[in-house]
Amino acid sequence: MEKYCFGVDVGGTSVKIGLFKTDGAIVEKWEIPTRTADGGKDILPDTAASILNKMKERKIGAQDVAGAGVGAPGPIDGNGTVHVAVNLGWGVFNIPQVMSELLGGIPVKAANDANVAALGEMWKGGGQGCENLVMVTLGTGVGGGIIYEGHIISGSTGSGGEIGHIHVKDDETIPCNCHNYGCLEQYTSATGIARLAREKLAADSRESAMRKDNVSAKTVFDAVKTGDALAIEVAEEFGEILGKALAGVAGVVNPEVFVIGGGVSRAGRILFDFIEKNYKKYAFVGCHNAKFELATLGNDAGIYGAAKLVLE
Amino acid sequence: MEKYCFGVDVGGTSVKIGLFKTDGAIVEKWEIPTRTADGGKDILPDTAASILNKMKERKIGAQDVAGAGVGAPGPIDGNGTVHVAVNLGWGVFNIPQVMSELLGGIPVKAANDANVAALGEMWKGGGQGCENLVMVTLGTGVGGGIIYEGHIISGSTGSGGEIGHIHVKDDETIPCNCHNYGCLEQYTSATGIARLAREKLAADSRESAMRKDNVSAKTVFDAVKTGDALAIEVAEEFGEILGKALAGVAGVVNPEVFVIGGGVSRAGRILFDFIEKNYKKYAFVGCHNAKFELATLGNDAGIYGAAKLVLE
Repeated sequence: MEKYCFGVDVGGTSVKIGLFKTDGAIVEKWEIPTRTADGGKDILPDTAASILNKMKERKIGAQDVAGAGVGAPGPIDGNGTVHVAVNLGWGVFNIPQVMSELLGGIPVKAANDANVAALGEMWKGGGQGCENLVMVTLGTGVGGGIIYEGHIISGSTGSGGEIGHIHVKDDETIPCNCHNYGCLEQYTSATGIARLAREKLAADSRESAMRKDNVSAKTVFDAVKTGDALAIEVAEEFGEILGKALAGVAGVVNPEVFVIGGGVSRAGRILFDFIEKNYKKYAFVGCHNAKFELATLGNDAGIYGAAKLVLE
Repeated sequence: MEKYCFGVDVGGTSVKIGLFKTDGAIVEKWEIPTRTADGGKDILPDTAASILNKMKERKIGAQDVAGAGVGAPGPIDGNGTVHVAVNLGWGVFNIPQVMSELLGGIPVKAANDANVAALGEMWKGGGQGCENLVMVTLGTGVGGGIIYEGHIISGSTGSGGEIGHIHVKDDETIPCNCHNYGCLEQYTSATGIARLAREKLAADSRESAMRKDNVSAKTVFDAVKTGDALAIEVAEEFGEILGKALAGVAGVVNPEVFVIGGGVSRAGRILFDFIEKNYKKYAFVGCHNAKFELATLGNDAGIYGAAKLVLE
């Protein structure tokens, strides 16, 4: 008989929960607030209570649940142990152990939220049909997730797929949020692209649709679509930096597909005009045929991937 | 009862074969010439005949052999299919299928030689006890192998771990063997280090022990050990390029250990004085505690790793 599974995506302000059939059909999704006070001690109990309520409401017995997967921001290793999650107030503990006890013994797995989103896009999103996938989330920061042969590469201490912090520029004077200088995320996140645009506008007096009060990544790619010369130069710079970095990633894991998500990806496939040619220029020839796809699950990638975690 | 296994390392001039107990104890190793004529059609039959002879000689029955692993130069995917191996004359075919038939049904697995060497170093070499490992072979070129949770990352088309061809320098005018410009191997292989030294000597008139007819990587690190100022500057340049590139690799797979092998590694742990500080400077903080170790199996890494392939 077909079973159910739960996917949990713990964020800094809300916890998203999805109820799925094990074939990946979503039955229902909802959110609860994230209570980060007191070291985030209420987060998992709140989530477990919400899941148990849902099971009661829908008359789903524990024997009908294959498991619950949890994605959370922070380094989480292959055993589901989180190694300090600053945004949630969490220290070091094993998420599956704690959560499974709260759920009366239902099997639980856990992984980093960006890695889990990659798994979701592999299962039901832009990477469907591919087992070797790299997901890049271009949002406020740059997140990454590596899926190899259908499984997340969490890394030895939970920092697998941290591609936003790959060093790409030597002469940077402003520190990244991670305290290093010259990380990929400083130029290719939504904020990074806006910064590239501001620098371009300051250094070049030509007219541009980007000359607004608050230039954003959206401003840039909207202007690109109208043929705005300065915006195209900004997009070229973005594409050179990102394409080159992804070529380096390919030299490690040689993926079948790169899935691009996050707010910046709403610009659409025009992004690939700037990324792909640079990827091909810098990548080892054996990696040239990697595909580029847009993420399709949006904010639901996390609950999908978390649910898939327990089906592996 | 304990069984035997064979490890085969196919090289351009000779095929190395090792007979092992499945606990990793080596019983015997030997070599046969590699006959690359006619598309390398004799290589696997020659190797299989040699293995079958050895079994006869030692009265080992097929039921006592767990399998035979094959490492070969070229892109080999997770199923053991080689996608053109120029040095051997091979086109596209499935190595395990062909070899297992030649061996009367003994199980066979195959992988790229650099990846197999990494597996060998994990099993019985410098990476013993670690399941997440990156091996870097600094020889004539730069080879790489990624082991994650005890298994080789072959990549979707057999180009996993091709870290020698990660792009590290934008202003390169000389092409790499792979036809790209600015690959890691152009600066950190034995030939790359010699080139860095020649460029330093041409640009700087100070006295140096490196001013010999033929400067080599060995000349450089021998001079470093005597405190030679110019040689130390060359080693710093080498360490900055390699440490930065390995920091990028860590942002993908977050390994527990980097194992450094190949001819250049004969310089010893002094290499790490130059690599590790740069690794720490550029790596994401969550990856800082990776260890650096020297490879210990030398030219036998390939047969050890190939044997281990069939025990996975």
